[in-house]
Amino acid sequence: MSNRIVIDLKFDPVAVRQALVTAFPDFEVINMANPANRERDLSGIAYAVCWNPDHDLFHRMPDLKVIFSGGAGVDKILAIPTLPKHVPIVRFVDDTLTNRMSEYVVLQCLTHLRQVSTYAAMQKRCEWRELEQPEAADLSVGIMGMGVLGQDAARKLQVMGFNVIGWSRTPKAIPGIETFDADGLDDFLGKTDILVGLLPLTAETTGIYNRTLFEKLRQGGALGKPVFINAGRGKSQVTADVIAAIRDGVLLAASLDVFEEEPLPASHPVWGEERIILTPHAAAASDERALFRLVERQIARFEAGEPLENVVNRTIGY
Amino acid sequence: MSNRIVIDLKFDPVAVRQALVTAFPDFEVINMANPANRERDLSGIAYAVCWNPDHDLFHRMPDLKVIFSGGAGVDKILAIPTLPKHVPIVRFVDDTLTNRMSEYVVLQCLTHLRQVSTYAAMQKRCEWRELEQPEAADLSVGIMGMGVLGQDAARKLQVMGFNVIGWSRTPKAIPGIETFDADGLDDFLGKTDILVGLLPLTAETTGIYNRTLFEKLRQGGALGKPVFINAGRGKSQVTADVIAAIRDGVLLAASLDVFEEEPLPASHPVWGEERIILTPHAAAASDERALFRLVERQIARFEAGEPLENVVNRTIGY
Repeated sequence: MSNRIVIDLKFDPVAVRQALVTAFPDFEVINMANPANRERDLSGIAYAVCWNPDHDLFHRMPDLKVIFSGGAGVDKILAIPTLPKHVPIVRFVDDTLTNRMSEYVVLQCLTHLRQVSTYAAMQKRCEWRELEQPEAADLSVGIMGMGVLGQDAARKLQVMGFNVIGWSRTPKAIPGIETFDADGLDDFLGKTDILVGLLPLTAETTGIYNRTLFEKLRQGGALGKPVFINAGRGKSQVTADVIAAIRDGVLLAASLDVFEEEPLPASHPVWGEERIILTPHAAAASDERALFRLVERQIARFEAGEPLENVVNRTIGY
Repeated sequence: MSNRIVIDLKFDPVAVRQALVTAFPDFEVINMANPANRERDLSGIAYAVCWNPDHDLFHRMPDLKVIFSGGAGVDKILAIPTLPKHVPIVRFVDDTLTNRMSEYVVLQCLTHLRQVSTYAAMQKRCEWRELEQPEAADLSVGIMGMGVLGQDAARKLQVMGFNVIGWSRTPKAIPGIETFDADGLDDFLGKTDILVGLLPLTAETTGIYNRTLFEKLRQGGALGKPVFINAGRGKSQVTADVIAAIRDGVLLAASLDVFEEEPLPASHPVWGEERIILTPHAAAASDERALFRLVERQIARFEAGEPLENVVNRTIGY
């Protein structure tokens, strides 16, 4: 077995370099961010850690045995035409990623519940006045995407007092949480005051968060109107519909961490929308060190003949 | 036993009136917010529900048997010179109050952890850039005041991944949380990245959150500098010191829900301080209906000869 590993992440190159200082002590690391590696022969190498790899990467790696995704989303990898058919893809889902995602989701739900933007505007006006304040138990948060991330967020939202319901494409039994599947989507949306998007990007979820869906969310709940939070994938969301739904009063507000085009162009109208809290795909940034630790563990399993964990099902897309 | 009850809350009068529609079906309610009751004879009445009562109220109620506080803090009641010595005071501590306080505390801790104000400023500039992001486990939240509210907030912060330590005047053993008492204050502060104030107001806690204390908080933690959050009592805090500590770089930021003088005068400089998130004593507003339900339960206990719950210890002040 070759003791070389290829890295093609397109993350912040400084953070990757720093994490690589102590990672993979038993391997020679070929970091594609280094221009000196552009023409290098990559044959004989078994492992690639990538997130948004060059489109010729897999073509240059005829002996690839395992692909490690740098994030939970693998749509960029699956979209590459030269992706070898029978090489397993391992997703990066670890506690750091999960915890950060839940931090983001709980933060955004509490921010909308506790009317943070209204109080911020009142602070600017030096206005001392208490608002009518529903509590978490008065609201239902509906999570679309009940994988590892969705279930962790659900549990933490429940601890904070929110009612939580879940939706996933296929039926899923999760103790303590009412769940809905494809057939129950309208029913799920009609019970949801805060919609949290954590779906992977697939053909079925492209553009799923659109005007038609927003109109099915519960009107007249404890916040008056529904709220949309997307920390999943940008191409699942029709950003123009989010803006229009807020302006038309279909949605109260939104928190968006992802967009169809990233980086989001400075000319996009969503930047200036007061009732949208915008972050630059930062909800649950991969921690490079945690990623490399996971890759090391999985390589050890693979070389010991044990099954890999978190392997992507290409048919369903995650 | 007289079936009359006096209410003198000084809360939002509309909310109180609405809650009274269904409360106390077996009692005649004398609401002191109604001017018609100003001169009324209150002798023979056993129960008063008050929060910031008129200073002559207790003098006018010679047959008072139980005082019910409209909030968890009883400093306004204890400060009244005519407070009868041997009448028990029952504090309002219920799940609604506790849950809302924990919503506020977790929201503020996550807001500082996740650099919300920096991202908000970047949104205004249309700037797409991910910040270096510590996770909750990289920080220690130190809670001063480990009663019902402090312990609930501590447990929820732990679920979100924060390290949590606690301080209270007297030693307290709380499973899973390192605690400190009066002698351990400096040690506690030196381990604290985010200080959460939930102390009751007593002679000892007046002005306790001051410059000297802020200077003992940990410098150089995962956020660089410490953060102060106060959802306890305003007179425990020297607001001018909070502002100065932020301007001098002793504190990174603060979230203040309470102030020495409330309503906070519009001329106070704290309104305009960008690194202070200000709310109008709204962290855990008493829910009037929940308050009246608690009073009904305690009156039923009292009239059945059972001991009252949540009775204030006047020596320690809460």
